[in-house]
Amino acid sequence: MQILIINGPNLNLLGKREPDIYGNQSFEDYFKQLKLDFPSVELAYFQSNIEGEIINKIHEVGFEYDGIVINGAGFSHTSVAIADAISGVSCPFVEVHISNVYKREQFRHHSHLTKNCEGIISGLGMDGYKYAVDYLTKLNP
Amino acid sequence: MQILIINGPNLNLLGKREPDIYGNQSFEDYFKQLKLDFPSVELAYFQSNIEGEIINKIHEVGFEYDGIVINGAGFSHTSVAIADAISGVSCPFVEVHISNVYKREQFRHHSHLTKNCEGIISGLGMDGYKYAVDYLTKLNP
Amino acid sequence: MQILIINGPNLNLLGKREPDIYGNQSFEDYFKQLKLDFPSVELAYFQSNIEGEIINKIHEVGFEYDGIVINGAGFSHTSVAIADAISGVSCPFVEVHISNVYKREQFRHHSHLTKNCEGIISGLGMDGYKYAVDYLTKLNP
Amino acid sequence: MQILIINGPNLNLLGKREPDIYGNQSFEDYFKQLKLDFPSVELAYFQSNIEGEIINKIHEVGFEYDGIVINGAGFSHTSVAIADAISGVSCPFVEVHISNVYKREQFRHHSHLTKNCEGIISGLGMDGYKYAVDYLTKLNP
Amino acid sequence: MQILIINGPNLNLLGKREPDIYGNQSFEDYFKQLKLDFPSVELAYFQSNIEGEIINKIHEVGFEYDGIVINGAGFSHTSVAIADAISGVSCPFVEVHISNVYKREQFRHHSHLTKNCEGIISGLGMDGYKYAVDYLTKLNP
Amino acid sequence: MQILIINGPNLNLLGKREPDIYGNQSFEDYFKQLKLDFPSVELAYFQSNIEGEIINKIHEVGFEYDGIVINGAGFSHTSVAIADAISGVSCPFVEVHISNVYKREQFRHHSHLTKNCEGIISGLGMDGYKYAVDYLTKLNP
Amino acid sequence: MQILIINGPNLNLLGKREPDIYGNQSFEDYFKQLKLDFPSVELAYFQSNIEGEIINKIHEVGFEYDGIVINGAGFSHTSVAIADAISGVSCPFVEVHISNVYKREQFRHHSHLTKNCEGIISGLGMDGYKYAVDYLTKLNP
Amino acid sequence: MQILIINGPNLNLLGKREPDIYGNQSFEDYFKQLKLDFPSVELAYFQSNIEGEIINKIHEVGFEYDGIVINGAGFSHTSVAIADAISGVSCPFVEVHISNVYKREQFRHHSHLTKNCEGIISGLGMDGYKYAVDYLTKLNP
Amino acid sequence: MQILIINGPNLNLLGKREPDIYGNQSFEDYFKQLKLDFPSVELAYFQSNIEGEIINKIHEVGFEYDGIVINGAGFSHTSVAIADAISGVSCPFVEVHISNVYKREQFRHHSHLTKNCEGIISGLGMDGYKYAVDYLTKLNP
Amino acid sequence: MQILIINGPNLNLLGKREPDIYGNQSFEDYFKQLKLDFPSVELAYFQSNIEGEIINKIHEVGFEYDGIVINGAGFSHTSVAIADAISGVSCPFVEVHISNVYKREQFRHHSHLTKNCEGIISGLGMDGYKYAVDYLTKLNP
Amino acid sequence: MQILIINGPNLNLLGKREPDIYGNQSFEDYFKQLKLDFPSVELAYFQSNIEGEIINKIHEVGFEYDGIVINGAGFSHTSVAIADAISGVSCPFVEVHISNVYKREQFRHHSHLTKNCEGIISGLGMDGYKYAVDYLTKLNP
Amino acid sequence: MQILIINGPNLNLLGKREPDIYGNQSFEDYFKQLKLDFPSVELAYFQSNIEGEIINKIHEVGFEYDGIVINGAGFSHTSVAIADAISGVSCPFVEVHISNVYKREQFRHHSHLTKNCEGIISGLGMDGYKYAVDYLTKLNP
Repeated sequence: MQILIINGPNLNLLGKREPDIYGNQSFEDYFKQLKLDFPSVELAYFQSNIEGEIINKIHEVGFEYDGIVINGAGFSHTSVAIADAISGVSCPFVEVHISNVYKREQFRHHSHLTKNCEGIISGLGMDGYKYAVDYLTKLNP
Repeated sequence: MQILIINGPNLNLLGKREPDIYGNQSFEDYFKQLKLDFPSVELAYFQSNIEGEIINKIHEVGFEYDGIVINGAGFSHTSVAIADAISGVSCPFVEVHISNVYKREQFRHHSHLTKNCEGIISGLGMDGYKYAVDYLTKLNP
Repeated sequence: MQILIINGPNLNLLGKREPDIYGNQSFEDYFKQLKLDFPSVELAYFQSNIEGEIINKIHEVGFEYDGIVINGAGFSHTSVAIADAISGVSCPFVEVHISNVYKREQFRHHSHLTKNCEGIISGLGMDGYKYAVDYLTKLNP
Repeated sequence: MQILIINGPNLNLLGKREPDIYGNQSFEDYFKQLKLDFPSVELAYFQSNIEGEIINKIHEVGFEYDGIVINGAGFSHTSVAIADAISGVSCPFVEVHISNVYKREQFRHHSHLTKNCEGIISGLGMDGYKYAVDYLTKLNP
Repeated sequence: MQILIINGPNLNLLGKREPDIYGNQSFEDYFKQLKLDFPSVELAYFQSNIEGEIINKIHEVGFEYDGIVINGAGFSHTSVAIADAISGVSCPFVEVHISNVYKREQFRHHSHLTKNCEGIISGLGMDGYKYAVDYLTKLNP
Repeated sequence: MQILIINGPNLNLLGKREPDIYGNQSFEDYFKQLKLDFPSVELAYFQSNIEGEIINKIHEVGFEYDGIVINGAGFSHTSVAIADAISGVSCPFVEVHISNVYKREQFRHHSHLTKNCEGIISGLGMDGYKYAVDYLTKLNP
Repeated sequence: MQILIINGPNLNLLGKREPDIYGNQSFEDYFKQLKLDFPSVELAYFQSNIEGEIINKIHEVGFEYDGIVINGAGFSHTSVAIADAISGVSCPFVEVHISNVYKREQFRHHSHLTKNCEGIISGLGMDGYKYAVDYLTKLNP
Repeated sequence: MQILIINGPNLNLLGKREPDIYGNQSFEDYFKQLKLDFPSVELAYFQSNIEGEIINKIHEVGFEYDGIVINGAGFSHTSVAIADAISGVSCPFVEVHISNVYKREQFRHHSHLTKNCEGIISGLGMDGYKYAVDYLTKLNP
Repeated sequence: MQILIINGPNLNLLGKREPDIYGNQSFEDYFKQLKLDFPSVELAYFQSNIEGEIINKIHEVGFEYDGIVINGAGFSHTSVAIADAISGVSCPFVEVHISNVYKREQFRHHSHLTKNCEGIISGLGMDGYKYAVDYLTKLNP
Repeated sequence: MQILIINGPNLNLLGKREPDIYGNQSFEDYFKQLKLDFPSVELAYFQSNIEGEIINKIHEVGFEYDGIVINGAGFSHTSVAIADAISGVSCPFVEVHISNVYKREQFRHHSHLTKNCEGIISGLGMDGYKYAVDYLTKLNP
Repeated sequence: MQILIINGPNLNLLGKREPDIYGNQSFEDYFKQLKLDFPSVELAYFQSNIEGEIINKIHEVGFEYDGIVINGAGFSHTSVAIADAISGVSCPFVEVHISNVYKREQFRHHSHLTKNCEGIISGLGMDGYKYAVDYLTKLNP
Repeated sequence: MQILIINGPNLNLLGKREPDIYGNQSFEDYFKQLKLDFPSVELAYFQSNIEGEIINKIHEVGFEYDGIVINGAGFSHTSVAIADAISGVSCPFVEVHISNVYKREQFRHHSHLTKNCEGIISGLGMDGYKYAVDYLTKLNP
């Protein structure tokens, strides 16, 4: 079973940027831990600040992997193109946001991605990724 | 550790109502299973179709329990009073929706409750409740 | 054949409240007359000012009766939960308003219930109930 | 007692056009039947695809007939001029739509005509005309 | 002279809930004091978290009392049904909010109740109730 | 010098329809008087309830007459096609409304025609036509 | 018979400012001519760039003169206070704009003053004032 | 193979009206040329300024022709009735606009017709008609 | 203790203007009475129809007085500058409206001033001033 | 004569992605065929999922080629930057969409690109590209 | 070379009012310093809380000075009349705001003045005035 | 002291593209000159048409430089991701636009970047960059 986690723009700063919103753990540290939680899953990780590279990655694995967890960050609210990429491939997606986006600015309340994903987890911190992976493993037992 | 699950209006019909949206398992069946997953947690369950009874229940346990999982169903989109009850008590809340509300009608995309909760899980089926309970147990270890 | 008429909040005041809008006949008087018009139908009547009790009643009879006539009154414009109850049970509904809601305030022009009902009758006075019952009897001859 | 039924644009296609929405009975067939239901009423029928001809007809009979049943079809949502014609003459109107317009596109949810009519019936199929005629006969007994 | 004070949802938590917004005096304590200020008025008090019970209470006393002071709390912004109850009975109402709702979230700036009341007092703390009672006593000297 | 007055839908009812808004003089009576005020102008008059006939008339005279006074009535608010006809011919137009449309319903506050006319006169009763003709005679002395 | 013309902000620049919109005649020149057209009327003129001085002037003459012609210029679109002054005095007003405000920016399409005036003339150049005075003289013959 | 071209209001002025927007060729001249391009197609042409006549024509040929090219002109933006006529008949439609409507006023950016047509061509001048006919010939080879 | 009452535009007409909305007592008469109710308070009064003079007055006393009662009248709905003046000085303000502004036109439902004041009283007639003064005296005992 | 076709994000999936919307021919296959239709034109093709690479390509050829056909796909609805690139170079553009975007979600009805292009073709399938190339060849004969 | 700086309402409080937003230097102090920076420019200063006096000042110097720097403060967001004054005179304007208005309330994000000025500087503190003067001196070397 | 200037999409065309809006000096020429004005500052320059590369650059220098001047061009209006990058690093930003964006299309009036920058300069041509650099040098003396 293969599952990819995609992190969008600025999430490479996790642990450095706005720790009151995002906490101070880097994603790389969290990811090591996460792999231990799912020993039977081949977990991959991809981060990019370039919208088109995220689309390219979705095309590359989206017909073969068993699921993708995506935190589109700022692109969630502006990218029709990533939303189209999600609906254009065959594997299931779960959308994750570390913070509760509904507590923040109005423009963060709408994500183009959600309607093309199985579901969304927002505000449960890093554990949102874990729950999303868990859900995807159960869709394809 | 005490955690309450609150289900709002019409969720007593789970398993009977619109099974293409909500699946065909009743919540009572799911709840038995859920308790087995969290043997060290005292899990309680409350369902009502009356907005004010949900508020009363929140007042009753919200200063004493360790957390509440709430699926406000139709009240999520219309009840300022439940949202006020959530912010008026001291324990943390997680909002859950069984279906992905962002795939459904426009008026289901906004919930008054979300900004007063830790976070939201939508579209991951019954497992949304499990992830929410898991998250709350970690907030109060 | 069993048909229920549900009247929402404040309709217990019919005949007393704002007679220039609603006329001065109480619903109980009208209901006696209505039963005479449909001798072969078992007509029942329920009124409540509590949203959740209306939902409970819909759950109670909505899988067994042949139809429900509903005048949601003020709840029509605010209750997603009653609308969900209507779509969650199996019998057909007709929505009725005594006054022509489109001649009144803007917020009365939208009803959450209508899209889940067979149709709507507004502004034809008490006779709206009669036409609604007649329509439902023909759906289930 | 004289009552006119006016059908707006495309309703000459009834029975031919989109039968899943409008059924497959032509209005002419229905009208024969309707006249039998009201033997003491002089029922007339007028259909036009031209907005101004409908206005002309309203001017012609609207000061003399006892009532008009109008299904404005597509003009309902766009014609201030027909709405003005209705309020400019003296007889009462009832608006009818065969389908439940509130289940259809957003632009069909508003009708310019409704606020100038006694009331509206929508979604009760051909029988909407019958109930409208019945109501008008009672206004002028 | 009889005057009723109605408090809506969550106001039973006064003194406990969000003291930076609502202060830390319970309403019961304030009410004792208030009765001393109006020795010649029979002051009654009612609180409920259930919308329909508030409507029932308004029907019960609204044709007989000399006035009602209502703090609809969260229902103010969502309840057409309470607004209809106010306009359906004969006694005058004054709307009160303890905090200045115009300093808070946008959705608290509109109250369905206000247009059916004599007036509104918002932001003057508990004394808002006193001024409202004073005003009502002068309407019916 | 040739000037045409065009009256839109329902203005054939002037003197008969809603006299509290439009007065009780028929346009034909007013028109006789108006011709006396402008002895040196060849004044013509056209009324239709059919949008397309108004367009045809504009095409017919709009390249030859010295000006057109148009009261589009209900079409003013809905007809892009008449607005296009006005901008498609060469003579100047003045828009006239007998009543003050800004005192009436919101949908009467916008006219598609105005931006293609020299100007607008609204609310000055029948004399609006006289001022409009006077203005046009001065444009082409 | 006494009639006042009020010109709002920047109209003291007439003849100097944006001549392609407003022409190049100063209002003083026009006013001399205008007085000749109405030998039996006592015509007065007032211009101010200060909103409150216009309100003061309306209060001063508005209970005594036979009518006021007002070109509110930029204040037309923002001043509720001038609109209130108009409705607060007893004489009739006509609103005038030299240019066709509906051909200009969107924010010039709404004037707070119009609904409190008899009517409006826009786009007929300086002659708008003449027609307005003429109309007012006829109201009070 | 039979294909009809329908031109809406004011397009009879082509070549005369606003040549900077629409060019200076009349449609009749263009049509002669167009017939030469499609020798095997029976091309017909219909123009009207009357909405209802366009609907009548659609009804007349829309169940028999192989396709219709429609330039609704001003009616595109206002006519629900023509849109209903298109969806009410069986042949395919292509919508054409000579100018690029998205470079013009906001109200021209939405056409009621488009969602009921195969597609739209806007801004490619007279050749839009040719491409539309070509497309329709290929749908029915 | 020093408290100032500021009345905005047109309130000098109180008792003269629209008595069905504002009553027929002049403010000067009411003010005499008010001073008797607060013998220990130095009450001052200021009225102006000029927005900037109100700002000047706020600057003049707003760092020294114990409170200001302001009825901004028409300026309430348009003046960011007065709102800025209120937040720029140090004393507390209470906003008063004599009529219930929420029963009147939509544009009167929003006041720029409210969020910078302690609270608002609307619809309680002249007594609103008394309650506001009473509240301010208690803030600074 | 040189013409470039630019395809935006996800169009590399053509033939694979959502075939019910986009058909099942890859663009590469279609492009071979297209070159045969225009033997005298030097046709080039560029696809990218990266917005900035599309801008770079427009800069590279947009001052030298005779025209560009652009299907911006998801970027059409969100990219001001591509729209600016189009208006910043000198050659003409035609916008193409394979599907009829006006039959799809609301957010696809607006394209930032259209107002900077000669025109748009939407819904005519792959042939949209052919018509666009044909149009551009005629602009530069 | 003559340049005027105009400060709008409440800016006389600079140094006193809300120092966390505006700093604690009075404008007079800053102005002395500013004159030293531009020894060859005749710098003048004008402040008023009265909208009409600002308009009068613009008229007085706006045809003769080489430029005006304007901080409209609260009037920026509401005054069409000052915007009209700016476009009515001949010298260039630069708009300045001391704070970054886009970090503050929504209603401060739009200024009527900006589109009539050369440009805007917001958020750069007192130095915004210096940059604006510098820019104007370069326009008229 | 190190300051970076970032130019967004299409600004590599400066001097070539739309010279009536942007002037005809290339940025490279201007930059040479600018460096002479600030001999003690290490000025760097970066331009990209790729949103993600701008984010990468901000991450690279934003924790170390003393300030960044950013002209986001088309990305200003659409990129939440760049706005997040700005708030995610520690150095101060000033936003610059060469033209006055408030004189152009509506969609250019809102920039996601502004609220995360110290301030904005728009419409002062190339000198906007100079003022921005000057401001940043003073923040970090």
